[in-house]
Amino acid sequence: MINIAILGFGVVGSGTCEVLSNNADIIKKRIGEEIYVKKILDLRDFPDSPYASRVTHEADEVFSDPEIKVAVETIGGARVAYDYTKRALSNGISVVTSNKELVSTHGPELIKLAKENNCVYLFEAAVGGGIPIIRPLYKCLAANNILKIAGIVNGTTNYILSSMKNEGISYEDALKEAQKKGYAEADPTADCEGIDAQRKISILSTLAMDGKYCNPEYVHAEGISKLTTDDIELAKALCCELKLIAYFANNGDGTASAFVAPHFVDKACMLSDVEGVFNAVLVEGDYLGEAVFYGRGAGSYPTASAVAGDVLEACLKDSVDMEFRAWDDTVSVFKDYDDIKSDFLVYSKTEDVASLIDGADKIDSVSGINAVIVRSISEKDLIGKIAGNSAIGYKHYLK
Amino acid sequence: MINIAILGFGVVGSGTCEVLSNNADIIKKRIGEEIYVKKILDLRDFPDSPYASRVTHEADEVFSDPEIKVAVETIGGARVAYDYTKRALSNGISVVTSNKELVSTHGPELIKLAKENNCVYLFEAAVGGGIPIIRPLYKCLAANNILKIAGIVNGTTNYILSSMKNEGISYEDALKEAQKKGYAEADPTADCEGIDAQRKISILSTLAMDGKYCNPEYVHAEGISKLTTDDIELAKALCCELKLIAYFANNGDGTASAFVAPHFVDKACMLSDVEGVFNAVLVEGDYLGEAVFYGRGAGSYPTASAVAGDVLEACLKDSVDMEFRAWDDTVSVFKDYDDIKSDFLVYSKTEDVASLIDGADKIDSVSGINAVIVRSISEKDLIGKIAGNSAIGYKHYLK
Repeated sequence: MINIAILGFGVVGSGTCEVLSNNADIIKKRIGEEIYVKKILDLRDFPDSPYASRVTHEADEVFSDPEIKVAVETIGGARVAYDYTKRALSNGISVVTSNKELVSTHGPELIKLAKENNCVYLFEAAVGGGIPIIRPLYKCLAANNILKIAGIVNGTTNYILSSMKNEGISYEDALKEAQKKGYAEADPTADCEGIDAQRKISILSTLAMDGKYCNPEYVHAEGISKLTTDDIELAKALCCELKLIAYFANNGDGTASAFVAPHFVDKACMLSDVEGVFNAVLVEGDYLGEAVFYGRGAGSYPTASAVAGDVLEACLKDSVDMEFRAWDDTVSVFKDYDDIKSDFLVYSKTEDVASLIDGADKIDSVSGINAVIVRSISEKDLIGKIAGNSAIGYKHYLK
Repeated sequence: MINIAILGFGVVGSGTCEVLSNNADIIKKRIGEEIYVKKILDLRDFPDSPYASRVTHEADEVFSDPEIKVAVETIGGARVAYDYTKRALSNGISVVTSNKELVSTHGPELIKLAKENNCVYLFEAAVGGGIPIIRPLYKCLAANNILKIAGIVNGTTNYILSSMKNEGISYEDALKEAQKKGYAEADPTADCEGIDAQRKISILSTLAMDGKYCNPEYVHAEGISKLTTDDIELAKALCCELKLIAYFANNGDGTASAFVAPHFVDKACMLSDVEGVFNAVLVEGDYLGEAVFYGRGAGSYPTASAVAGDVLEACLKDSVDMEFRAWDDTVSVFKDYDDIKSDFLVYSKTEDVASLIDGADKIDSVSGINAVIVRSISEKDLIGKIAGNSAIGYKHYLK
C-alpha cells in the first residue's frame, strides 16, 4: 500500500480522491499496489465527507509522516502552496499538482529541490486540465526540436468568445453568463487578462526549450476584456475565428518567443474549431510536423484525471520517467515582446492597407473589407507602419 | 555512447537515422548520452548513403553484437520482422517498431519475451504515426477506465474519402489519384479494406482493456471500397461526414467491442473535421471525458519522429516506464461482431423509417430524406428490422 496526502480539499483535491477511490481496482492492477489517501490537509472540516476522519489542520502531521510518499497539492496560488510544496519535497515526498501559478513561478527551485531529495515534482494537470500535453511534449516528442506551440489553454475566455460569437452579445454580458454557469470566477482578472494563459505558456515554453526557464513575468499577455462585438463581426467577415492564443516559437538562433494575445485564427487551422470551455494545444516538431491535443481543459474530473495519472507515476517513482531536466533560470533566451516578430492581420474599411505594407498578402473578405497578412513583424514596427491611422486595425494572425 | 541497429533501411528506417543524426545535439543533452547507429541490416546495399559502410546483410552481426542495446524494426510484415524481433529480444536487445501488423499479431508473445529478457518492446509509431497516442493512453490516462476509442487511423482511406467529397469523384478515381500521389500503395487492399485500421484498433483495444488481448483476426473490418458518390452525397444531406472509423467500446460488464467500418460522423464530433491524410483518435476516459489526438498518421518523418522518441525511451531503459502489462491471450473479452451493439443512421428516400423502429431519434435532413438514429443495436438485428426492404439504407453513426 502506498500512502498519499491531499493538500487542499477543494474541487480538484476531492475529485482526485474520488478518481483514486472509484478506480481503485484498476489502479491496483496497473501499478501493483493500492493507493491510500492517509491524510487530507485543509483549514476546513468536512464532517459529511467519507474522508472526514482523515482531515487534519496540522501540516506537520503530513510532512513528518514517514509513510507518506506522495502529496497532491491542489491548494492553488503561490504562497501556502509554495511553502507546503517545499516542505514536502525537502522531506523526500513527491508532489503532484495542477497549480500553474506555482509551477510557472517557482518551477526552477522546486524541480531542483525534488532532484536533491530524490523525489519528483509532476504537473501534467497544470496545462490543459485533463488533456495529456506535458508528457507527450516531453516524452513522445523527445527526438524533435519543438518549433512552435499555439494553444487555446484557457476555457473561460474561450467560452466567453464563443458566446459573443454565437449569441451576438457583448464581452460584459458573455462574462456575466459565464460567471452564472460557473465557468468564470467572481474576479475574472486572471482568466480574462490572459494571466492564466501566460503561466501555462511559460511552462510549455520552458519544456520546449529544454528547461531554459521562461519567466511568466516577462511574457507579454493581452487578454480579451477589450474585445468587442465589432471584432467578432470582423473575424466572421474575414473567415477567421477570434481566439485567445498562447504562443511559443523557437526562433532557431538560440532565442525563443512567447506571448499571449487574441488572434484571428484562419478556418484552416484546427484551433479555429475549438468552442466553449474546451482547450486545444497545437505543437509543431521539426520531424513530427503539427499535432493537436484537444479536450476539457478544466473542471474537477478532467483535472483530477490528470492529477491522478501523475500520482500513479509518482508512486512508481523507481520507474518514473518524468524527472524533468533542471529548469535553468540563470539566463533568459526569451525575447522582449517589442523584439518578437509574429504574423498580423491588418484591416481597414476605408484604407488600402495592401499599399501600405510591402510584401503583405492580400486576403479575401466577404464584406469588402481591405485586409492583408503581414508576416514576421514586431507589433512595435507594425504600429510604426500604420502611423496613427485610426482607420486601420490589426490583430495577431494564426493559420 | 549507446549503440543501436536499424533493421530495414526503407522510408521509416532511414527517416529514423536522419532524425537521430540531425537532432543528435539535443538528443545527447536530453538523455545524457550519444546515440550511434552502429549497424543497418538490409538485403540491399546503399552505396550512396552516408551510412553505406554500416550496412550489413548478416543478421548475426547485429544480434550477436553485445554492444547493441536497441534495434529499430522497420521491416514491416510479420515474417522476417517476427523472426528478427524474437532474436533481438531473446538476446536482451530492446526493439522499437512502427510495425502494427507484427505488434497486433504477435504482441502477447513479444512483450512476454521482452520482459523475460529484461528489455522492452515499444511501438508508439504503430498507431497514429507521429501522433502521441500509445503513451498518453497508457500513462496519462492511467487513472481512468477507457470507455471508448474512435479513430481515423488510416490516412490513405481518409484521403480517398476527402477527395470523393471535395472533388465529387468516384472511389476508383480517388484511389488512382491517391496512388499517383504516393498516398496509396499499388495493392491498396490492406488500407482500403480496413485491415490496417483493424490492426491498429486491436492494439489500442488491448491497451484500453489492460492487456486483455484483442486478436485482430476476430475484429470485424469493413473498408471503403464499396462506398459510392451517392453515400458521400447522403452524408452531406444529413450534415455528416463519411469516415472510416476504428471503434472500441468497453461494455462495462467485463466485455468489450472492437470493429472497423465506415461511419456517418456528426458535424459536432471533432473527427468530422479531419481531412486528407491526417489521423485523429478520440479517447473517452471515465474521468477525463473526451480527448482528441490529431496529426500526421503516416509519412517518413512523422513516423520516424515517434520511432526515435521510443528509441530514446529504450536507451533510458533503467527509467523506462513503458514496460507494458503482459498481453493475455488466454481468454477473450471481445465480442463477436454479431453481438456488438452500436449506433446506426438509417435512411430512406421513400420509406418512413421512423415508424419502422421503436425509440429511434428522427433527424433533420436538408433534402427531404427520412432518417433516424437507432442506438445500441447489432447490425444483425438492424437488418432483421429492415427485413430486406431495399429502399432503406444504413451506416454506422458517430456523434
